[in-house]
Amino acid sequence: MKPAEGRTRVVIEHIQPQIDCGLVPARRFLGDRVAISAAIFSDGHDHVLARLLYKHDSDPEWHSTPMTALPNDLWSADFTVDRIGPWSFTLQAWVDHFDTWCADLKKRLAAQPDPADPARRDLPPQDIPLALTIGALLLDQTASRAKGPDARQLKSIAASLRALAGKKSTVYEYPLTAAEEALAARYPDLSLATVADRELRLWVDRQRARFSSWYELFPRSTSSDPARHGTFADVEVLLPEIAAMGFDILYLPPIHPIGRAFRKGPNNSATAGPDDEGSPWAIGDAQLADARSGPTGGRSEGGHKSIHPKLGTFADFDRLLAAVHANGMELALDIAFQCSPDHPWVVQHPDWFLHRPDGSIQYAENPPKKYQDIYPLNFESADWSGLWDELRSVFQFWIDRGVRVFRVDNPHTKALPFWQWCIASLHADAPDVLFLAEAFTRPHVMYSLAKRGFTQSYTYFTWRTEKSEIESYFEEIARPPISDFFTPNLWPNTPDILHASLQTGGRAAFPQRLILAATLAASYGIYGPAFELCEHLPLRPGSEEYLHSEKYQIRHWDRHDPNSLAPLITLLNQVRRANPALQSDLSLHFHPVDNPHIVAYSKSTLQPPTPMTLAEVQALSGAHDAHRGVAPLSGASSTAPASSAPPNVILVVVNLDPHNEQAGWIDLDLKQLGIAHDEIFDVEDLLTGIHYQWHDRSNYVALHPTATAHIFRIARPQGTRG
Amino acid sequence: MKPAEGRTRVVIEHIQPQIDCGLVPARRFLGDRVAISAAIFSDGHDHVLARLLYKHDSDPEWHSTPMTALPNDLWSADFTVDRIGPWSFTLQAWVDHFDTWCADLKKRLAAQPDPADPARRDLPPQDIPLALTIGALLLDQTASRAKGPDARQLKSIAASLRALAGKKSTVYEYPLTAAEEALAARYPDLSLATVADRELRLWVDRQRARFSSWYELFPRSTSSDPARHGTFADVEVLLPEIAAMGFDILYLPPIHPIGRAFRKGPNNSATAGPDDEGSPWAIGDAQLADARSGPTGGRSEGGHKSIHPKLGTFADFDRLLAAVHANGMELALDIAFQCSPDHPWVVQHPDWFLHRPDGSIQYAENPPKKYQDIYPLNFESADWSGLWDELRSVFQFWIDRGVRVFRVDNPHTKALPFWQWCIASLHADAPDVLFLAEAFTRPHVMYSLAKRGFTQSYTYFTWRTEKSEIESYFEEIARPPISDFFTPNLWPNTPDILHASLQTGGRAAFPQRLILAATLAASYGIYGPAFELCEHLPLRPGSEEYLHSEKYQIRHWDRHDPNSLAPLITLLNQVRRANPALQSDLSLHFHPVDNPHIVAYSKSTLQPPTPMTLAEVQALSGAHDAHRGVAPLSGASSTAPASSAPPNVILVVVNLDPHNEQAGWIDLDLKQLGIAHDEIFDVEDLLTGIHYQWHDRSNYVALHPTATAHIFRIARPQGTRG
Repeated sequence: MKPAEGRTRVVIEHIQPQIDCGLVPARRFLGDRVAISAAIFSDGHDHVLARLLYKHDSDPEWHSTPMTALPNDLWSADFTVDRIGPWSFTLQAWVDHFDTWCADLKKRLAAQPDPADPARRDLPPQDIPLALTIGALLLDQTASRAKGPDARQLKSIAASLRALAGKKSTVYEYPLTAAEEALAARYPDLSLATVADRELRLWVDRQRARFSSWYELFPRSTSSDPARHGTFADVEVLLPEIAAMGFDILYLPPIHPIGRAFRKGPNNSATAGPDDEGSPWAIGDAQLADARSGPTGGRSEGGHKSIHPKLGTFADFDRLLAAVHANGMELALDIAFQCSPDHPWVVQHPDWFLHRPDGSIQYAENPPKKYQDIYPLNFESADWSGLWDELRSVFQFWIDRGVRVFRVDNPHTKALPFWQWCIASLHADAPDVLFLAEAFTRPHVMYSLAKRGFTQSYTYFTWRTEKSEIESYFEEIARPPISDFFTPNLWPNTPDILHASLQTGGRAAFPQRLILAATLAASYGIYGPAFELCEHLPLRPGSEEYLHSEKYQIRHWDRHDPNSLAPLITLLNQVRRANPALQSDLSLHFHPVDNPHIVAYSKSTLQPPTPMTLAEVQALSGAHDAHRGVAPLSGASSTAPASSAPPNVILVVVNLDPHNEQAGWIDLDLKQLGIAHDEIFDVEDLLTGIHYQWHDRSNYVALHPTATAHIFRIARPQGTRG
Repeated sequence: MKPAEGRTRVVIEHIQPQIDCGLVPARRFLGDRVAISAAIFSDGHDHVLARLLYKHDSDPEWHSTPMTALPNDLWSADFTVDRIGPWSFTLQAWVDHFDTWCADLKKRLAAQPDPADPARRDLPPQDIPLALTIGALLLDQTASRAKGPDARQLKSIAASLRALAGKKSTVYEYPLTAAEEALAARYPDLSLATVADRELRLWVDRQRARFSSWYELFPRSTSSDPARHGTFADVEVLLPEIAAMGFDILYLPPIHPIGRAFRKGPNNSATAGPDDEGSPWAIGDAQLADARSGPTGGRSEGGHKSIHPKLGTFADFDRLLAAVHANGMELALDIAFQCSPDHPWVVQHPDWFLHRPDGSIQYAENPPKKYQDIYPLNFESADWSGLWDELRSVFQFWIDRGVRVFRVDNPHTKALPFWQWCIASLHADAPDVLFLAEAFTRPHVMYSLAKRGFTQSYTYFTWRTEKSEIESYFEEIARPPISDFFTPNLWPNTPDILHASLQTGGRAAFPQRLILAATLAASYGIYGPAFELCEHLPLRPGSEEYLHSEKYQIRHWDRHDPNSLAPLITLLNQVRRANPALQSDLSLHFHPVDNPHIVAYSKSTLQPPTPMTLAEVQALSGAHDAHRGVAPLSGASSTAPASSAPPNVILVVVNLDPHNEQAGWIDLDLKQLGIAHDEIFDVEDLLTGIHYQWHDRSNYVALHPTATAHIFRIARPQGTRG
């Protein structure tokens, strides 16, 4: 079947960023300059022009900015996302007969005969008066698309071309000024323009989604009195200390009532004693419903919208939240959608659980293992819709109390379509809410959760300890297409994972893994105080579980142990805050080192050159029109000027061997560092303050386990050789 | 907004092949086994199953075949395309609770306590009677989806599980046979199955689209009498000779009347003498309309539906076509959509051309060059729709006369949407018609023409003469995604292109380029007799135009020159026909050689192993049901059995230096050749018949310009060492 309009000759293909054919929005961060590229071409030799159309969902009209031609029919343009939430963009491209004519006329003029020049006298005629007349017609048409003084000026230029054509000069000069060309370019003929076959979507998060430093602690272990269960008030006391270490997100495991049936004892023993507190992830105790009713009335039912009575009241929670904010941090709650047998949903909504033929509810199991203290929710329930609503309302409940960050426990064991709906629906009202996916599973499933809306994701970093593993994993996740939707958050430890390298690496392993986490990615976290106190004993050899894990019992930590890594953590977080290069993942680049125990990588704020000049932007910025399903374009182009801040360039070198000094030669990729060949440059180790003068690409490093890494800031240039 | 059904937990992503998000069908050939792959996964730990649905457009129902799980959540299945034309495929995947239950039960049984075994006596109980009861329920549900004996048998299996559960044995054994499991698997519960979000399309061409050998000649140069213009009857005389060389497509430049205005003289001179014949691409002479009226009445108007009177009549054409077919070949016509000033369209449809302000029609020009004998068609004409209809009717006219192959001249200077419509609309009635795109332009435009329906494409081969150029270009076009839609046709020369390597390489350059063309791709062509007679003189130094080009004058060739390359061409085409490896492009693989002047590559019919067994196929082949927008499935699975023919493996080694002997060591990638490490194997040079015994990967070759290449057939194995 013929198209309605067969004369739209331009093709637009391969628009980037584009995830899963546009089903999934690409993720960006507030203030980002978003580069859009595509292949754009037409038949024949006519000139093509193109522009990018973009808008925030709240904008009534599209903004537009001209695209710049790159080699091989690629085009690009960029714009700055100045608001969080949903954006759309699309492209428009057209054969531009005026632009074609300008180039064509220049070629004719260059080839015209010149009676005064014997070498050019006999060249064939180039029909220049006719070409000038054609140009005048094109300018008349352009004028008809303009208004006011622009229209009058365009008509006057057309008239001057006609006059020139009538003069029958023997040698012609190019008749238009750059300003006149630019004026005409502002009124292109878009009647046959191609519009990309789809509008693509972006989701823009606030800056903390990109750059964040998480600290996880168990509130019940924060009491200064070993005989007492810790409370929110105890946590409050620690806030200045945590903030001083430089963390900006304090993350608490579930704060809800803990089930009694099949409660786990210390070290995950199957039976609990009467004083055992159980696992905070065995959520729910309907017996605590009435007693702990919150200020909003009947919402506190002993489940996911309730607070464990030993931690405090809703008033205590509100005071803690305010104190966290006052300390310049945010509070992250842990949302674990599973129930203890005592959870109120078990009685209220038995249809949300899977029942066995004997009438019992199916508990979690992975034969032969049984987890009888946990009932999973059945996402194939006939009342899936009611279940979804209730789960969403759990987030909404805490959002309404002021929480803006959630760490979601095992999201990969809940239906993926649920997350897509739940997060989108929460973001519709609260686009500033961040969701961290705690999914340690297969790559496609982890990526799928990110595509369904999770802001950040736990990663395989915890298990990537060899240089080749680190390089290949981060080469994958720090580059498109993965980086277009997946934002990593690196954890050297969690309450579930005491990696073998920390068990056996001695004290040196902790700084090494910490520095990697804090510099490989812009977001990282630690589970403390276990981490800074170098807690390293496993439940048993070969296990990744901690001995005396806080998941099952209260621990008391000596936060002021002189061997604590708190000073290093504090320094690292200062370095992260002072160096914008460490606040983004995209520039990560590995540099070869001739020692397999040393890994070297850089990050920088160096930008690829702006693909268009501001003058070029302004030349087309007046274009305004509506065509083919695209709303009228606003007159203003909002391409941000390039940042004037000096580039920040960081080179990290880490000894991965916690037992031995390692040394080697780094073969720097100087281009990635903004350093010219043979240039002399200053590198300052931000961990020690020591400066070195380096020159050219090959440089020697030696790292002892007691000083496991360099974090160099590279300053350009102290001078150049030769 | 919530989905209508929130319980479809399985995700299907990254379906391959898929071009431009399914906008463009992937191209395959009759008899191909089409492999479809995707990432398929769900939340949690339940087992997922998946199947491929596919149909030819003429099939009333979908066929289905089960998919096989590969590592990392990838799945694949394949089917054989047994008809040309349009096919569709999609995927369906679901959480399979019965499959999950089987695996779960096996784990329970492996972990059950055994009173007779002291080591296992105290293991915790595994609730096996309950598990058996759950299995019985699942089998009851399965039975409800079956009919007749299957339903009865499934119910009986369920009953036996219940009986076993009631027995209260102390040690249980797995209760199902493989056949019982397979029976249940034939009736999966698809009520919550996910169907891929789109149906993807395939276009299947006949075999000649993949494997073809083209011979181009100018009919007007075929007269045995130098004083006479050649005719169709003269071409007829040559057919046995051309067929004997092994060609299967005879391609003629335009056969239409040639314009008189601005007719070009010999060597592209601007003025023609009274006896000059002009260029066949300056199409149309309305003065010849009535005189040459064809058998279908008024259709012969002196343009694209007319025959140049000096070539013959329609009756002569019909006789030639029949003779071409009788010689086992097909006839390809050249469709060049451009007009001489004398073309009847110029008067009948002045609105199809661009008019200049002085009233004249815009001729072709690229300032300062003018091509006044050619009027391009204006695809921005207000009557674009009428123009499209008429252009399409040109193809239809010749299709109706029996032509099934077209070489399209400069398609990249005609609007791309036109080709998409024109080819699809012609293919709707005649899916066996092949279109070769003669576009030498930028990569995106060339690829875009293929996406719009062109069967084969001219390539950059003509200019790729260095080893690195050849390797990188064919690595690009012989692999997905390009190979999914772009089929190359390699030409060492054309009437427009006498490459410098043929001008300066001496006689050795011709066999070298010929062998490369005939073995790098399954389709190739030569412009003869210029090629086999090693015509190498350019119009002037630096030009790629032939001196005394046949485009502008009649040439007389001595086809029986003893130096003709016809014997080599004959041998090459015999080798191509006898070796299926050379009849497809996909297996092309380059092998390193330690000499930059020697290129080595292999092609083979070795297949990756079938991803499922026939038994597995049959197990699920009875599945039949309709669900969620997918039409009812036919009961039969049509996965073809693997071919039983022995694999055909060809290794080509070419000396790219026409002036000197070159020698070197090939480092064979043995896996690509189906040879084991350390194996001894026979290589037979199909150009000489000489056999060599090779072993292991490193082998020495020396090639003199007079014997520029080896085409080895590799025979497995003569024995193995050690």
